[in-house]
Amino acid sequence: MRQIELHGVFEETFTGIKSSATPGFEAVFTNKTQSFTVPSFWDGEGRYAIRFMPQTEGEWSYTAAIDGKELSGNFLCIPSKAHGLVKAVGEGFQYEDGTRYLPFGTTCYAWTHQTQELEEQTLATLRISPFNKVRMCVFPKSMPYNNNEPELFPYAKKEDGSWDIDRPDPEFWKHLEKRISDLQTLGVEADLILLHPYDRWGFSKLSPEEDVKYLKYCVARLSAYSNVWWSLANEYDFVASKTLEDWDCYGETVSKADIYGHLTSVHNGFVKYPKRYWTTHRSIQSGDVRKVNLWKDEYHLPVIVDECGYEGDIEYSWGNLSAFEMVNRIWTVVTRGGYCTHGETFHREDEVLWWAKGGALRGESPERIAFLRNLLQSIPESLETAKKNAFSIDPNDKDSKALEENPFAKSLMSLPEHERNDFLSQFMPNMISSGSYSLNYLGRECRSIMDLKLPENGKYKIELIDAWEMTRTALHDSVSGNIKLRLPGKEGIAILVTRLEGEGLN
Amino acid sequence: MRQIELHGVFEETFTGIKSSATPGFEAVFTNKTQSFTVPSFWDGEGRYAIRFMPQTEGEWSYTAAIDGKELSGNFLCIPSKAHGLVKAVGEGFQYEDGTRYLPFGTTCYAWTHQTQELEEQTLATLRISPFNKVRMCVFPKSMPYNNNEPELFPYAKKEDGSWDIDRPDPEFWKHLEKRISDLQTLGVEADLILLHPYDRWGFSKLSPEEDVKYLKYCVARLSAYSNVWWSLANEYDFVASKTLEDWDCYGETVSKADIYGHLTSVHNGFVKYPKRYWTTHRSIQSGDVRKVNLWKDEYHLPVIVDECGYEGDIEYSWGNLSAFEMVNRIWTVVTRGGYCTHGETFHREDEVLWWAKGGALRGESPERIAFLRNLLQSIPESLETAKKNAFSIDPNDKDSKALEENPFAKSLMSLPEHERNDFLSQFMPNMISSGSYSLNYLGRECRSIMDLKLPENGKYKIELIDAWEMTRTALHDSVSGNIKLRLPGKEGIAILVTRLEGEGLN
Repeated sequence: MRQIELHGVFEETFTGIKSSATPGFEAVFTNKTQSFTVPSFWDGEGRYAIRFMPQTEGEWSYTAAIDGKELSGNFLCIPSKAHGLVKAVGEGFQYEDGTRYLPFGTTCYAWTHQTQELEEQTLATLRISPFNKVRMCVFPKSMPYNNNEPELFPYAKKEDGSWDIDRPDPEFWKHLEKRISDLQTLGVEADLILLHPYDRWGFSKLSPEEDVKYLKYCVARLSAYSNVWWSLANEYDFVASKTLEDWDCYGETVSKADIYGHLTSVHNGFVKYPKRYWTTHRSIQSGDVRKVNLWKDEYHLPVIVDECGYEGDIEYSWGNLSAFEMVNRIWTVVTRGGYCTHGETFHREDEVLWWAKGGALRGESPERIAFLRNLLQSIPESLETAKKNAFSIDPNDKDSKALEENPFAKSLMSLPEHERNDFLSQFMPNMISSGSYSLNYLGRECRSIMDLKLPENGKYKIELIDAWEMTRTALHDSVSGNIKLRLPGKEGIAILVTRLEGEGLN
Repeated sequence: MRQIELHGVFEETFTGIKSSATPGFEAVFTNKTQSFTVPSFWDGEGRYAIRFMPQTEGEWSYTAAIDGKELSGNFLCIPSKAHGLVKAVGEGFQYEDGTRYLPFGTTCYAWTHQTQELEEQTLATLRISPFNKVRMCVFPKSMPYNNNEPELFPYAKKEDGSWDIDRPDPEFWKHLEKRISDLQTLGVEADLILLHPYDRWGFSKLSPEEDVKYLKYCVARLSAYSNVWWSLANEYDFVASKTLEDWDCYGETVSKADIYGHLTSVHNGFVKYPKRYWTTHRSIQSGDVRKVNLWKDEYHLPVIVDECGYEGDIEYSWGNLSAFEMVNRIWTVVTRGGYCTHGETFHREDEVLWWAKGGALRGESPERIAFLRNLLQSIPESLETAKKNAFSIDPNDKDSKALEENPFAKSLMSLPEHERNDFLSQFMPNMISSGSYSLNYLGRECRSIMDLKLPENGKYKIELIDAWEMTRTALHDSVSGNIKLRLPGKEGIAILVTRLEGEGLN
């Protein structure tokens, strides 16, 4: 019997099939207790395939009816070291096997539409990078620095020159899934952007029916890869031809078709996507990263700021952050309970910019991002947003007597809600904590002193982290109660408190 | 006949007066064509004084009725090099004689409540600083780093320990006006904060009647100093005991009493002060300095961001900006058509921080502020906000057909107004210009390239300004049309375009 690893891809190909339309037939996979109906996908003339990712060990079998014939097969699902799909849990993420997953993504929108050589270089770069997620488009991309024509397109053309959504080009898709599989080997999640506006070929202007057909094909073909995430769109609100109703329909389509429950989000331009039953987390574009806590509180979903600007020096304001600011934004997001995605856009005459085409990384932020990722991984507990803010009373509690006596809170209360929330958000420290650990990032504040309030009943270790210099220095080996810290008075400093014994930190 | 310089202070003192209440009597000053009624002020037992600032040359006389007697006198107002009061004109300010005034303020809230030695040091520092305005409180200040007791108080105490607003302490006021006069000698405007919340003596808790009496006394005593500005409050909304109606009453009181029309504003905590007929400009507290254009458009008044944070390293987030960020904020405000005030808060065990007590400046921002001020002064024309933004169409024009065709504008239009304005504000470049000059500050954008669109019909000089390094380098001596600039790819760069001949720049 064929053996397939847990969370691996079982594939069966059927040739000489007469029917030629997509979608094709369905297969039913079953073990003793579970049963899944899986659509096949057209894979070239007379050729169909089905893919299935077993998530339970043991014997599986399938049956399918094709051209009036009953076909069947089976395989044995064997143990694996793979962790399975990443799932949203609480404020964060974990693999299906319970292993913590801390998203440290990067952005290579069109990396699979480049030359073989460049794509291999991208993979080699990713292998030694801190990144464990890549935002990448299915369709090719057209915008400044993205002028090269891709070699392969996802569909064949009709005689009138328009795309034939019933005739995917198997070469394109085989190439794409090879790259998804390459990422899987590296332990990198493929945050697959299904639709986007930067298009000169017509893929952003398919009809809603064509879009649905395309999305079902993506799911049938790609959902057996455990590292796939569905990013319904990059900047959904900038795709001129589609309405929110269209997007909702697309989200429901993917959600219904996907039997595994891959992570699903919609990345915004200006207007953030509403919360839907099928959105597993928020994929935010905004440079105003202090608002992470507001975005989290609004939907009670994990937040990934997938676009906060890119380290680089190009002519566009979204692509010329200093390395320090890229690092600063990522630290800010992480210490406010979210996750944040890297990107790099250094001007080159050959137009090979990491953010679109991959290749080599040239910036100074990746090693600092690695430092942060290693720091978080070194902490055995999950850290969550600390709810502290600068007010000892809650200005949103209208019954509080203290309000009348606190002119700051009284003034805040008189503001429109969005302005009040802006201020409350500002006052909230960049702090995540657990019972035994607390990490407070001071951002661009250049403090030379800091009052730290620790429990009296316990012993705590205090470390000074320099996010840019990537150093971790013990300030106090064992202290408790109210401590006055001397700090270096510069930007990019964080304080890590570790409980050695006694009372918890939150 | 006594001679008084134009915009100088004419003062007459009357002793042995029986009446003892404030306000005292009034005097009427007249030349051939003008007549001003000026209240006297109590200046100690049996002693009253009147002050008058002549704003027209020639002979002036006055008459007054005191204790049933008619008194009179006269003086000759002679020419002076003094420029007179600063007035709000359009987006900016100018002296009464038409000379341009570019506010480059600093903050020394309680500098006149310190030792003689420290106060003299403050003046010596200001003499060589770039600052031409000081925010300073009449009342002493109580808050962290402000724990020393002042030597003098503005009022005598009643037997019950409360302040007697009918009995000002002449020593206090003589000291204050000496310092105002010292500033005048240095060409520095005294932005006088009349009321504020940081108080342990009770001056923030006077009754409305006492406040009004106090304000009238301030005007009677101090308005003859041409360099006085009325800042009704520091953080008006944080003064727990006063309502907006109180503040409006105080503004009207000062406005009615002040025959010269000194600049008058109200500095906010969280809630910006509404526009009133007596507010000459906006005095804003906010670190979100990109919003200058919104604040300007809202009231059509000049904007001074009097508190955007301070260069320093103390434990409070409002007082630990890097020098670079202090400079960056000031450049940002100025190149968005506003003005911005400096402050400095470096932690010292002796608690002598410039922002409150004056003394010496220790930061790295003042010399950069001097560089900016000199740059602007070197440009003979007034530069005003350029109305350009990233959209070639106006997303607020709901009838525009282009809206339907521009997905960015369409998405923007669907946002709540405050969010839309935030985005529009972001897209607006930091750019001020006139017909012959244009200054574009790139802020923290690290561009290595930039497309510059100049008119085809003309010759233009392009200079690269480095705000931190304080350098000004010619990039092109004489160019026109579309130019691609190579820039150093770092933060804090500005581009100055000077028209040599041909078409204007705006």
